[in-house]
Amino acid sequence: MKVVTCVAPVNIAVIKYWGKRDEELILPLNDSISATLSTDHMHAKTTVMASETFTEDKIWLNGKEESIENPRLQNCLKDLREKAKREGDAVTANLKVHICSVNNFPTAAGLASSAAGYACLVYTLAKVFGVEGDVSSVARRGSGSACRSVFGGFVRWHQGELLSGEDSLATQIVPANHWPQMRILILVVSDARKTTSSTSGMQRSVETSELLTHRIKNCVPKRVEAMKKAIEERDFETFAEITMKDSNQFHAVCLDTYPPAVYLNDVSHAIIRLVHQYNAACGQIKVAYTFDAGPNACLYLLEQDVPTVAALVRLVFPPNPEQQQDFFRGIPVIPSVILPPINEPPQVGKIRYVIHTKVGEGPSQVDDHLLSEDGQPK
Amino acid sequence: MKVVTCVAPVNIAVIKYWGKRDEELILPLNDSISATLSTDHMHAKTTVMASETFTEDKIWLNGKEESIENPRLQNCLKDLREKAKREGDAVTANLKVHICSVNNFPTAAGLASSAAGYACLVYTLAKVFGVEGDVSSVARRGSGSACRSVFGGFVRWHQGELLSGEDSLATQIVPANHWPQMRILILVVSDARKTTSSTSGMQRSVETSELLTHRIKNCVPKRVEAMKKAIEERDFETFAEITMKDSNQFHAVCLDTYPPAVYLNDVSHAIIRLVHQYNAACGQIKVAYTFDAGPNACLYLLEQDVPTVAALVRLVFPPNPEQQQDFFRGIPVIPSVILPPINEPPQVGKIRYVIHTKVGEGPSQVDDHLLSEDGQPK
Repeated sequence: MKVVTCVAPVNIAVIKYWGKRDEELILPLNDSISATLSTDHMHAKTTVMASETFTEDKIWLNGKEESIENPRLQNCLKDLREKAKREGDAVTANLKVHICSVNNFPTAAGLASSAAGYACLVYTLAKVFGVEGDVSSVARRGSGSACRSVFGGFVRWHQGELLSGEDSLATQIVPANHWPQMRILILVVSDARKTTSSTSGMQRSVETSELLTHRIKNCVPKRVEAMKKAIEERDFETFAEITMKDSNQFHAVCLDTYPPAVYLNDVSHAIIRLVHQYNAACGQIKVAYTFDAGPNACLYLLEQDVPTVAALVRLVFPPNPEQQQDFFRGIPVIPSVILPPINEPPQVGKIRYVIHTKVGEGPSQVDDHLLSEDGQPK
Repeated sequence: MKVVTCVAPVNIAVIKYWGKRDEELILPLNDSISATLSTDHMHAKTTVMASETFTEDKIWLNGKEESIENPRLQNCLKDLREKAKREGDAVTANLKVHICSVNNFPTAAGLASSAAGYACLVYTLAKVFGVEGDVSSVARRGSGSACRSVFGGFVRWHQGELLSGEDSLATQIVPANHWPQMRILILVVSDARKTTSSTSGMQRSVETSELLTHRIKNCVPKRVEAMKKAIEERDFETFAEITMKDSNQFHAVCLDTYPPAVYLNDVSHAIIRLVHQYNAACGQIKVAYTFDAGPNACLYLLEQDVPTVAALVRLVFPPNPEQQQDFFRGIPVIPSVILPPINEPPQVGKIRYVIHTKVGEGPSQVDDHLLSEDGQPK
């Protein structure tokens, strides 16, 4: 019997992944770049137990048993067992496994829960099966962006060239401590309506958007290089401008999709206006927004600007009375009292809460298992 | 003393104009196509009076005197006076004019009021100054899309090639009676927030959107030809699909602009979803949406489908009690009772009213003047 438990982080892309060249292998049409967020505030946690007494593979997600037959899950399991038989613990890889995974944050629209989940699953399985070396390309087969959650700091997912997908993997650009001032505010929008899933939206974009091809060929390659340089040089304004432009272009491509895939709502757009107004008032770019396939905003900013921006967010989006208590979560925030004038009418209760976090490390092993010794969830 | 009064129509583009290659001459980066709407329900009306007794040019818009120094207005006046001196009534063109213009519809976001207004001004001035021949290129200098309101039916604005802009003019594709079944529903959205003006949004798109260039070079030319053919052949499904795709792509480019120019809101997107759901339920494309630089929707559909679509719009967007009376305006509507199932939660009061209209004729002269004999507004 062997049991391992790990936590793995969420990552938020600043150059977006949108469009696959191979649906089965999950090979992207372009490189992407993300920051890995601290597991202190948001993480997936997974226990994998391998035992001779188990008669079948089983999985529990957020307390509920799910089908192990999920094809993406099967691909990850199969890939790792094969790796283990070649270069790891072939005996354990032959055993059946019980998997139990939980997220400590809502699996809501656009919070990258599948990235953290698959990164954690693959990282933990690799430990159990004694597989060393890169596992990002295995995580990729669970959920494309999961490959970026295998590393801490700022991470690049290389699209790769091989048909096999072996070279479509993630590498670290800089570690988490390279840019210690970087902070992230995640603005969780209320009533996030279930829209098009990112998998099907992406597929439809590839099939129908004439702008997607242009983005991939002509825009993203230049942006990836400029973004890498901005990160290496800790050039916040360049980093922020490219981040915003790439988020906007990704959503533009979604809108150019037929029928359109719409992920931003009026609250998202009010956040966008607020950020541009604040930057204009400061006379320099102090904050960047980025949005995944959902209305929740992710703001990148430096530590020194958190008090003012947090206060502005609370001013424009005052919480409902019952949500005032824990409106700010994660790293403690002391909102500023003096604020620049902003021309944006307040909208009560439109943002449910704000998570204040920072760039963090990749997956790591922990001690408290989610499965008891009999292989059942605790 | 000479006095002429005319009415001119609104037009709604199905291939959008977005981006100028010359700001001063208002020369576009691409061809565009629109339908001219009947003046029965929406029009601008303009009286021009020329008199030896007038000491200066004057203009009243919707009951309020405005500055005649507006550069676009001056360009139209100057162009027409010069034309008149070469080929028209040079004597009248030397007189000062009083201009009075009203719209019979709200000058709200996205209702193309400036197009109708400038088309009417230029058409009426041309009559007063005895100018014959094309005046669309003069109307263009007032407001780009105004050149398309100079003709009835379906109209194409040719971008032209000359630096002078002389060949950037409108021509009729087919007259209004070519496709008599075509109907238009204009859904006027409540609380249309004032956003970026189309002039400045367009300019910012040209400066910052990497997708705009691709749209103009690679997408629009093909669409213009396909759209022209669909109109000539009365091929509704092709017409509708291109209309929707082009509206989406135009708004995609706006979103790719930095900072983004956002004209659609949550209600606009709910209308888009409703149209796609209805078309899917019908198994064929029955309705097309298109949006200009504002949240109001313009639906193109055939006469036979008006009762069902109007009923669906009222079902998903029930009017406030005080607006129930005149929710449907324009051509009378008898909403259907039997409707396909639609999965879209009702939103009360989000659409203020609906104008039901059809494709109509270009500008025409009328008898009731807006100026009394002393040259003052009645």
